[in-house]
Amino acid sequence: MDMLRIVKIGGNIIDDRLALEVFIAEFSALAGPKILVHGGGKEASRLAQKLSVPVALIDGRRVTDAATLDIISMVYAGKINKSLVAGLQAEGCNAIGFTGADGNTIVAEKRSPNPVDFGFAGDVTGVNIEPLKLLMDAAITPVFCAMTHDKKGQLLNTNADTIAAELAAAFASQFNTQLLYCFEKSGVMKDIGNEESLITKIDSDFYRELIRQNIIADGMLPKLENCFYALHAGVQMVAIGRSHELLQNTQKYTSITL
Amino acid sequence: MDMLRIVKIGGNIIDDRLALEVFIAEFSALAGPKILVHGGGKEASRLAQKLSVPVALIDGRRVTDAATLDIISMVYAGKINKSLVAGLQAEGCNAIGFTGADGNTIVAEKRSPNPVDFGFAGDVTGVNIEPLKLLMDAAITPVFCAMTHDKKGQLLNTNADTIAAELAAAFASQFNTQLLYCFEKSGVMKDIGNEESLITKIDSDFYRELIRQNIIADGMLPKLENCFYALHAGVQMVAIGRSHELLQNTQKYTSITL
Repeated sequence: MDMLRIVKIGGNIIDDRLALEVFIAEFSALAGPKILVHGGGKEASRLAQKLSVPVALIDGRRVTDAATLDIISMVYAGKINKSLVAGLQAEGCNAIGFTGADGNTIVAEKRSPNPVDFGFAGDVTGVNIEPLKLLMDAAITPVFCAMTHDKKGQLLNTNADTIAAELAAAFASQFNTQLLYCFEKSGVMKDIGNEESLITKIDSDFYRELIRQNIIADGMLPKLENCFYALHAGVQMVAIGRSHELLQNTQKYTSITL
Repeated sequence: MDMLRIVKIGGNIIDDRLALEVFIAEFSALAGPKILVHGGGKEASRLAQKLSVPVALIDGRRVTDAATLDIISMVYAGKINKSLVAGLQAEGCNAIGFTGADGNTIVAEKRSPNPVDFGFAGDVTGVNIEPLKLLMDAAITPVFCAMTHDKKGQLLNTNADTIAAELAAAFASQFNTQLLYCFEKSGVMKDIGNEESLITKIDSDFYRELIRQNIIADGMLPKLENCFYALHAGVQMVAIGRSHELLQNTQKYTSITL
């Protein structure tokens, strides 16, 4: 089977002009089929503030009201996605920007308002890989922002880590699929803040142990849930770390296995 | 040759929720390959005002500075384009949103700052139809907003009428191509404001005559220049009018011929 790399980048790269340039060059240089998934960075919050759209939180989690959905659509699907596409083109990587609505590639349903109403948040119900395969066969790279749709005309906000995991899971039967989560650290560390304490491999048993020891907590929990979701769906390699280490495969990252 | 319809809509449809719903249903129902090109409507100006980005004009024409380009990218490529794509999907029309950067489909060069610096305005230098053909062969409809790129990482603002004409010209040798400009009137009228005075056919000679009589002036001039540009490139049918009349081919519109 051919190898497919699905690379997710977050705010630490999006918000850092130099880091973004380096990433775009390294990502563009990767041979073979690949998909980029990006988060939003601080730009959406900045725009919300300028437009006096309050950030609505319930239990510390963001609520996507109509005004916030517009901002996400403008910043994620507009400004960030198109600037990434233009940057990739400059490096010779022929890219096309996507939301889940484009090509009907990622269908979601609006999360139930009970017990908590998160507004226009979408939980993925299906992935249609055909348009993406068609483009990748023509050496074109899909670039996804963190939006889906309900196929009834409504755009929805869906976490970028989840979109990357769902795409990887959907491709797992047809490609030797690698899911690479790039973030601002080398990976999961025993002692947060000490890069020397990097854990290079986590399997299911060790994962439970690390949760018990409170080494994996907070934002790392849903990220690792996405990792295991993809592995259970047959994704061949899942790893978390810095983009350079993951794209150059230096082994200085955390591999997740079943 | 197969028929290809390239349909351009402007602010009169984008800004009118009911008109937009009707248009999306009628456009979705069209059989065969088709491309939608959309303008921006008033949303970009509204956002500029909210963000206190001044509208810069030289000789009455808008200048695209960096802040304005961001707004265009957010509103055209983000909010409007993605809401159109989601709306088309709801009507069963499988669509993918495009700027000229996506798939490297429309390459432009930044207009020379001499004699007048219009900022990030792009004049089209090339159209790559292959990615679009690939998608249309798979019954997927490209939806273009009014942005191009220079292939060096810079997005550019390009008039939507021009984008529609350039796409039509590029496809003319491979499809029986129709270029349909939808706007808020039935077409070109002898007596503006009197719908009964609709001119149903304009050829090159009559065009010069109408300019001489000052019946074609202002914004209608560049629109008709785009029409003749497309006709000279071999586009089979070019017409201007209301979307319903053009999509249903009721003959109540203005046809432009050489």
